[in-house]
Amino acid sequence: MISSFHPPVRTLMGPGPSDVHPRILSALGRPTIGHLDPAFIQMMDEVKELLQYAFQTKNPLTLPISAPGSAGMEACFVNLIEPGDKVVVCVNGVFGIRMLENVTRTGGVAVRVDDEWGKPVDPAKLAAALEANPDTKIMAFVHAETSTGVCSDAATLCALGRKHDCLVIMDTVTGLGGVPVLVDEWGADAVYSGSQKCLSCTPGLSPVTFSERAVEVIRNRKTPVQSWFLDMNLVMGYWGEGAKRAYHHTAPINALYGLHESLVMLQEEGLSAAFARHRVMHEKLYAGLTELGIRFVVDEEYRLPQLNAVWIPEGVDDAVARTRLLNEFNLEIGAGLGAYAGKVWRIGLMGYSAKQENIDLCLKALSAVIAQ
Amino acid sequence: MISSFHPPVRTLMGPGPSDVHPRILSALGRPTIGHLDPAFIQMMDEVKELLQYAFQTKNPLTLPISAPGSAGMEACFVNLIEPGDKVVVCVNGVFGIRMLENVTRTGGVAVRVDDEWGKPVDPAKLAAALEANPDTKIMAFVHAETSTGVCSDAATLCALGRKHDCLVIMDTVTGLGGVPVLVDEWGADAVYSGSQKCLSCTPGLSPVTFSERAVEVIRNRKTPVQSWFLDMNLVMGYWGEGAKRAYHHTAPINALYGLHESLVMLQEEGLSAAFARHRVMHEKLYAGLTELGIRFVVDEEYRLPQLNAVWIPEGVDDAVARTRLLNEFNLEIGAGLGAYAGKVWRIGLMGYSAKQENIDLCLKALSAVIAQ
Repeated sequence: MISSFHPPVRTLMGPGPSDVHPRILSALGRPTIGHLDPAFIQMMDEVKELLQYAFQTKNPLTLPISAPGSAGMEACFVNLIEPGDKVVVCVNGVFGIRMLENVTRTGGVAVRVDDEWGKPVDPAKLAAALEANPDTKIMAFVHAETSTGVCSDAATLCALGRKHDCLVIMDTVTGLGGVPVLVDEWGADAVYSGSQKCLSCTPGLSPVTFSERAVEVIRNRKTPVQSWFLDMNLVMGYWGEGAKRAYHHTAPINALYGLHESLVMLQEEGLSAAFARHRVMHEKLYAGLTELGIRFVVDEEYRLPQLNAVWIPEGVDDAVARTRLLNEFNLEIGAGLGAYAGKVWRIGLMGYSAKQENIDLCLKALSAVIAQ
Repeated sequence: MISSFHPPVRTLMGPGPSDVHPRILSALGRPTIGHLDPAFIQMMDEVKELLQYAFQTKNPLTLPISAPGSAGMEACFVNLIEPGDKVVVCVNGVFGIRMLENVTRTGGVAVRVDDEWGKPVDPAKLAAALEANPDTKIMAFVHAETSTGVCSDAATLCALGRKHDCLVIMDTVTGLGGVPVLVDEWGADAVYSGSQKCLSCTPGLSPVTFSERAVEVIRNRKTPVQSWFLDMNLVMGYWGEGAKRAYHHTAPINALYGLHESLVMLQEEGLSAAFARHRVMHEKLYAGLTELGIRFVVDEEYRLPQLNAVWIPEGVDDAVARTRLLNEFNLEIGAGLGAYAGKVWRIGLMGYSAKQENIDLCLKALSAVIAQ
């Protein structure tokens, strides 16, 4: 017989999930109600409004996809791409590569613009690619690369996309709530994020927002969206305006209670205060790690405060060290992904994890483990 | 400012979500840990084992998709179908129609076999379709139609599929945990369900199981699976065997705590006892509704005990009545879907909702509302 699962209590300083505030954990356990219950529909409307605040957008089509960030990514690509469409994809880490996968699996024609891992997307290279490909329909880039901790200049990249009359898809899974995300000001058309990063909610939901221009394109497609589950034409009928909602799929009720609570908390703190807190905590962590002789992967001006990629100190075994952190300190930090596997650690300071106690624990634990 | 959401306490007797046991609600709020934490991986293994029990299968590829049942459906279709593949789809309600949508959006060629709503799939019609289409690769049907409350003869339908050398896709979203689901004995190849029906967990996860034969087909595809998020070749790397798991997407950690707890409870009760409880409660509800003059849509031998479709009594306004049930009795029952909209109510007795108190409340509330 298998018995109930009681997880250990960890401190989560990886690339997400981040520590979840007790208010959010408590919201998850509230009584389940129906996905068409008027009380639930009112909560959905609040979630939309709170997400509009988080994304700094007036886009009516702003909602959480009922699945993790990678489904949010897929929702953006499958809704905007029709077979044969040309898509310029900027690649400077794992999630740019995943974007490419999405383009080809959707029948799009990908034009890949590479930048070195650990560096931001180079606007000059993007401009050249867009000039060389005047028939480009969509331009896609990662604002906050979760695999490297790099923040790219989203305002400039979006402006380039708009100048070349492209729809702009932006990945800000790790960005939202941690650094400014100005969807309307930048002019991004389809933007996705995740619940388990700087929103500090549990994993499993992907906030997305689509501009009116994107909605127009989706409504006027010549071919059906290849995913029934992610077809925004259908999803809109459930998350749309007014009291009347059409059943599409059964929403993840309790997970949405959690997201609602996390967004209420973000609104209470205020975006500027949240960004400042991430910045201050990052600086403290940076000072402490530097004192331990640990070097950062990313140049100062492109660093995401919420995701600190550092080189694993010479002579330290990656797996052994992370296992000790987990077993001796109940501390999780992130391994390197892709080209960075075994070479880099990713230390998250996301949402509720961005606090002094976590930094103290992290520095103490790392110091013990690398001394060994 | 938007404040925390405190849902009303409802009794859920619709077609799902069903009432969620306090043990499951409590599990949802346990501390979040990482999706690659060894403790979490051990829990994942337990979830797989418990799902194998629920599905009565030895299939190693048995796991919950990180999204609702409609994504589980899509996972089965997109992984097995390659463009041009012929798929025979049995349609006797809304979810058969949704299957058709999945076939065409995946580039498959659908052969539609219709049966009347409220009737089970007719094996003779299916046999004729399979004989007329010897190049059929996949046969798909709904075991437990959530839109009508009909249980089809899955053993016979699967046998027909096997006889014609088809892969068999079976929807048992509403079946699992409420009536026998014998995946191995029947020989179904790709089967999906939902967490929020007779498992009485919160919505948002879709248990699936794939036979070795199906896995072979997936591994040897000529074209990539069109969905990156649902590509089982990649999902297997995370949910696979052994301690080593590759990151694919971030699993919905706390939602999986809930599913684990619901499956532990199913194992504690035992499948036979759970089926018997659903049957007994159905009989009590049937007796009570009949006394109120309410007639069932489905003939006795095909009725799903957990989902009771009844004709809305003449002269009773559907929307007004359901609003009264909700406002005066905090009771949710389901509206009719598709062809049944405005004509039929669907009264669920699923999982934790299948208990005497719920039946008493339902009969009392309905009696008050239809007397009006």
